[in-house]
Amino acid sequence: MALIVQKFGGTSVGSPERIKNVAARVAQHRARGDRLVVVVSAMSGVTDQLIRLAKDITPLPAEREMDMLLATGEQQTIALTAIALQAIGVAAVSLTGAQAGITTDGVHTKAKIQHITPKQVHAWLDSGHVVIVAGFQGQTPEGQITTLGRGGSDLTAIALASALKADLCQIYTDVDGVYTADPRVVPTARKLDEISYDELLELAGAGAKVMQLRSVEFAKKFGVIFEVRSSMNDHPGTIVKEETRSMEDVVIRGVSLDRNQAKFTLTGVPDRPGVAARVFKALADAAINVDMIVQNISHGDGAPTTDLSFTVDKPDLAKAQKVITGLQGEAGYRQLLVNEKIAKLSIVGVGMRSHSGVAAKMFETLAKAGVNIDMISTSEIKISVAIDGARAELAAQSVHTAFLG
Amino acid sequence: MALIVQKFGGTSVGSPERIKNVAARVAQHRARGDRLVVVVSAMSGVTDQLIRLAKDITPLPAEREMDMLLATGEQQTIALTAIALQAIGVAAVSLTGAQAGITTDGVHTKAKIQHITPKQVHAWLDSGHVVIVAGFQGQTPEGQITTLGRGGSDLTAIALASALKADLCQIYTDVDGVYTADPRVVPTARKLDEISYDELLELAGAGAKVMQLRSVEFAKKFGVIFEVRSSMNDHPGTIVKEETRSMEDVVIRGVSLDRNQAKFTLTGVPDRPGVAARVFKALADAAINVDMIVQNISHGDGAPTTDLSFTVDKPDLAKAQKVITGLQGEAGYRQLLVNEKIAKLSIVGVGMRSHSGVAAKMFETLAKAGVNIDMISTSEIKISVAIDGARAELAAQSVHTAFLG
Repeated sequence: MALIVQKFGGTSVGSPERIKNVAARVAQHRARGDRLVVVVSAMSGVTDQLIRLAKDITPLPAEREMDMLLATGEQQTIALTAIALQAIGVAAVSLTGAQAGITTDGVHTKAKIQHITPKQVHAWLDSGHVVIVAGFQGQTPEGQITTLGRGGSDLTAIALASALKADLCQIYTDVDGVYTADPRVVPTARKLDEISYDELLELAGAGAKVMQLRSVEFAKKFGVIFEVRSSMNDHPGTIVKEETRSMEDVVIRGVSLDRNQAKFTLTGVPDRPGVAARVFKALADAAINVDMIVQNISHGDGAPTTDLSFTVDKPDLAKAQKVITGLQGEAGYRQLLVNEKIAKLSIVGVGMRSHSGVAAKMFETLAKAGVNIDMISTSEIKISVAIDGARAELAAQSVHTAFLG
Repeated sequence: MALIVQKFGGTSVGSPERIKNVAARVAQHRARGDRLVVVVSAMSGVTDQLIRLAKDITPLPAEREMDMLLATGEQQTIALTAIALQAIGVAAVSLTGAQAGITTDGVHTKAKIQHITPKQVHAWLDSGHVVIVAGFQGQTPEGQITTLGRGGSDLTAIALASALKADLCQIYTDVDGVYTADPRVVPTARKLDEISYDELLELAGAGAKVMQLRSVEFAKKFGVIFEVRSSMNDHPGTIVKEETRSMEDVVIRGVSLDRNQAKFTLTGVPDRPGVAARVFKALADAAINVDMIVQNISHGDGAPTTDLSFTVDKPDLAKAQKVITGLQGEAGYRQLLVNEKIAKLSIVGVGMRSHSGVAAKMFETLAKAGVNIDMISTSEIKISVAIDGARAELAAQSVHTAFLG
């Protein structure tokens, strides 16, 4: 009799009809004898609607009150899901994050889980109930309601699985699992049976929209094995776990494409200490995330100058442009060039560590496909290149074929 | 510096615009230096919408889960109200019923308040905040969320006022206060400056829709003085309190009309002990409330028979008819007559106790107006008569003129 934590997102519980479907799936599972904890998100659309109500009152509502407001979304879903299970004869009970013993720090709208004391969860499980827990929320030791920020329901599920020492944590979503590439871009992409935490982290960081980084980080930190699988069918999903020896036999686990970055180039930057530091400090102060950075070698005879390139997320483009323009006098660069038409192509795999020549093979493949490389950045298990956005799909397909067939 | 509890109902907080209006009123009051606790209901329509969602899943959802679901309505309003106050520069904070220390028994959907430990309320008041508390909800000592049933937000306000030893409790509503009669029926009706708990209880019991009985009963039990007043204007409302000597100078406080009852008459009931008991026991077992009862004197030479009449609320009519029909063999009555076209006219006033001839004057007034009296029932401070529904307005106007001008 296994203890399983299952998480269903907002789309899966988006209407009374869909909540009944989720209940039917849970009931099926329950009939096999497993003990179940089910984490649910707010019904899709509800959170946005609540945010709209608050913004109708004031553009910048206090974060404590936003938590009080938004926590109601999940609270509604847990009640409705418990009702749906009871309606088909399954003993079920709903618990808010606070009732489930999820204690967080006091950083409203992006609280961190400090510890979980799932006394009520255990008690209800022991009396034969399926326990439905509100995702995305907790409370401070002083009893203030908090929310965990984006992807918070995944985090709730994984943290609960850890605290309950669950045998498995299943993240139900609208895809069958983690793929070697986005099937809309690379038609030959296939679902992975397993992937390591680090690989999933690098893929997610490289633009693959599977799960928020912090949930995967939490799972890695506490060794929570979880499965990403579809809420629409019964296909097995992708198991995410600590890497095993056999994972290293595969050089590359997946390919990802990120079209959400823009490239900034400052030309004629005086090549003296501290200039780059000034630029990136100003961007950091404005909470702008910089991803890839490349500085070319100096040129010129008199005062040496250099070209400095970096990428930022497109939503930050206007803000970054303002920051950089404001620095022109101080940093003394000649010109700011912005290119929104780039894409970042990444390959990820723990096998890279034990296989040599991976980068060379990637660059060669791109060259053969006629794709020029603009920037390069690497980590221990990832190689990313910035390329022309117009050739991004071709590049992804070629690299996928070269490494993954 | 007074401590005041103010309660705003669902219509007053029915949209972001209206919540801003409430905030503006509260801010005005706050500017005078008073310490304020504001109790709010769910935005009008929200509770019904949540009930609909649950009923879309199953016709009879569990009451524990309905409490979990419905409590979110008030939780949304407290957050939005706090946001609206902060937006106009007033320090404010929202608390759920549980956070406000409202402890109830475990009877879900109609829980009774057991005690209130408003530690958090005091702390936030002391730090200069307006405290917004969710009406209608509490939690059990074990931490289960409960709701208080109909009129629950009034009850929250009055119970909090008692626990906090507030100087005043203001119930904001869509009327200016308690009237001597319904102004739509009696155009000369006027607003009362004050009324005793008992008079308000009798008026509410007699069909005047001001407040739920249990909130008034609670206020009477704990001596909480409250004011019923309009959320649309600044007119003083009606103060509800323990009766004073001077209240007795007024014979009649108000007139009320209840069109929500139907009259049952059983003819030819055998006049022997136990028959009436059987009838009313069967109705009570079916949870049907009986209001007025009249039994005529026996007639007939052989086995003496009598006619038994009583009134029930119209929503219970079909159920009551079924119960009575089922008793025909056992109770042995001749015929069941049902009259839905009656009205109950009541006059209420603590002055009745010290003034004689009140009933006589009422009956005489009705006779002069050509209104026939069908049934009569009295309490210490109320006289009710059942009359022909078609003449109800004329009757109410005549009686109002005779006693109240």
